[in-house]
Amino acid sequence: MHGTSLARNTWYMSDDCAAVWRRAEHLAQRLLVRKGTAIYRQGEQVQQVYFVLDGEVELSALFPDGETAIFDLLGRNGLFGEGPALTGEPCHGTATATQDSALLSFNIRRLQVALPHHPELAWVFLRVLAMRHYTCAQRLLHVFRGEPWIRVGELLNRLMQLHGRPIAMPARGMLLAISLTHAEIARMTGLSRVSVTRVLKQMRAQKVIAVIERRIIILAPNRLVFDQ
Amino acid sequence: MHGTSLARNTWYMSDDCAAVWRRAEHLAQRLLVRKGTAIYRQGEQVQQVYFVLDGEVELSALFPDGETAIFDLLGRNGLFGEGPALTGEPCHGTATATQDSALLSFNIRRLQVALPHHPELAWVFLRVLAMRHYTCAQRLLHVFRGEPWIRVGELLNRLMQLHGRPIAMPARGMLLAISLTHAEIARMTGLSRVSVTRVLKQMRAQKVIAVIERRIIILAPNRLVFDQ
Repeated sequence: MHGTSLARNTWYMSDDCAAVWRRAEHLAQRLLVRKGTAIYRQGEQVQQVYFVLDGEVELSALFPDGETAIFDLLGRNGLFGEGPALTGEPCHGTATATQDSALLSFNIRRLQVALPHHPELAWVFLRVLAMRHYTCAQRLLHVFRGEPWIRVGELLNRLMQLHGRPIAMPARGMLLAISLTHAEIARMTGLSRVSVTRVLKQMRAQKVIAVIERRIIILAPNRLVFDQ
Repeated sequence: MHGTSLARNTWYMSDDCAAVWRRAEHLAQRLLVRKGTAIYRQGEQVQQVYFVLDGEVELSALFPDGETAIFDLLGRNGLFGEGPALTGEPCHGTATATQDSALLSFNIRRLQVALPHHPELAWVFLRVLAMRHYTCAQRLLHVFRGEPWIRVGELLNRLMQLHGRPIAMPARGMLLAISLTHAEIARMTGLSRVSVTRVLKQMRAQKVIAVIERRIIILAPNRLVFDQ
C-alpha cells in the first residue's frame, strides 16, 4: 500500500528503483517549489532531470486552440524532464507544481560524467525510461482505437495497477484509492467531460465498475479494455 | 542523405549512435531472418534487444476485432525489443521481418553485466530510449486531438524530419523520399484509408503538400500540424 502522497499519481517508479535515485542526492540540487510554480514551460529546452521527493507535479500540454491535455500527474518517486534533457528536444509540455513540492534536480551533463561510476543508477535510469516508453506506447495504442470506452478503460486499468486495493465490501473488486474529477479524466484521455460521464455510466450499468462515495471500484477488470 | 535501405523507416537512430551499437557486436549474436519471419509475437516476454544491421522490421499490434496498427517500420539502425526486455512486460506487438534482414541480438542480462564496462553504450542506450519515448509522447499528443488532419500532419512532419530532401523543382519544398500506401498511413495513424485519402486531398487543395509521381512534397511544413 502506498502513502496518501501517492494518491493521484498516474506514473511513478517502485521504491527499489527510487531508492537508487535518492542515494544519488549528492549528484543533485534540492529544490523546494511552491504550489503553482512552473518548473519548466512547453517549448523550452531543459538540462535537468527532476526526481520528486515529495509533493505533486502536473505535466500538461497546451494546444493552440487553448485546450490542454494532462499527460501525467507525478507524486513521490516521479521522474520528469529526462526526455528533453537527454534528447535536446524542446519540452512537449509544462511542468507545474500542484502542491508545495521537494525535488532533486540533476544536471544532465553532470549525470553523463557520473553514470559510469554509478552503474546501478545507469541501469535504473534505463529501466525507468523503458517503462515510461512502454506506458506511452500502451496509451498510444488505446487512444488509436478512438472509442471512449477503450480510452477510459485503459486509464482505469493503469490506475488500478498503481492504486488498486482489493476489497470485498460493499462489493468484491479493486478500489481505486485515487480522486480524479470527470474533467481531469477527460483531459487525460483526450475526451470531452460529457463523454467521460457517459462511459462511466455505461460501465456502471454493465457492472464493470461501481461508484461508491465518489470512489471507483473495478468489478470486472478484464472488461475494462477491449470490451463494450 | 540516407541510403535506399532507410527509405521507409518511421524511426531510427543517427549513424553516430548506431556506430556504438555496431562496435558492441561482440556482446551480441548475429541473426539472419527471412522475409515474413516473426522475431517475437505480441504478448510474449522477450529477453533480447534487437539492432537492425540491414533489412526492414515492422512492429504491429493486433486488436481483438482483427484490426492492426503499425507502430513502427524499422530499417538500418533501428532498435526494438528494448522496452519489454528492460521492463519484463509482455510485448505490445509483433515484430516481423518485411525483408530478409540482418540483426544483432543482445541478451538483456548480458547487457546489464557489460554496460558498466561500456559507458558509451550505456549513454547511447539512454538517449535512444529517451528519443523513442519523446517520439511516442509526441504521437500521443497528436492522436489525442483526434482530427484526421492533425494525425496525418504529425506523421508527415515526422517523416519529413527523417526523409525530407529540399528540392526546388517542380515545386519548392521538402520531398519525402519514402513510399507509403494510403492503407499503411491509415494503419500508422489509426484512421480509415478513406479518411487518409480525404486529408491528403485537402492538403493538396490547400497547397500544404503536392503529390508528384506518387511522391509527397511538403510545401508548407508549418501548416502540417495544428492547422486546417
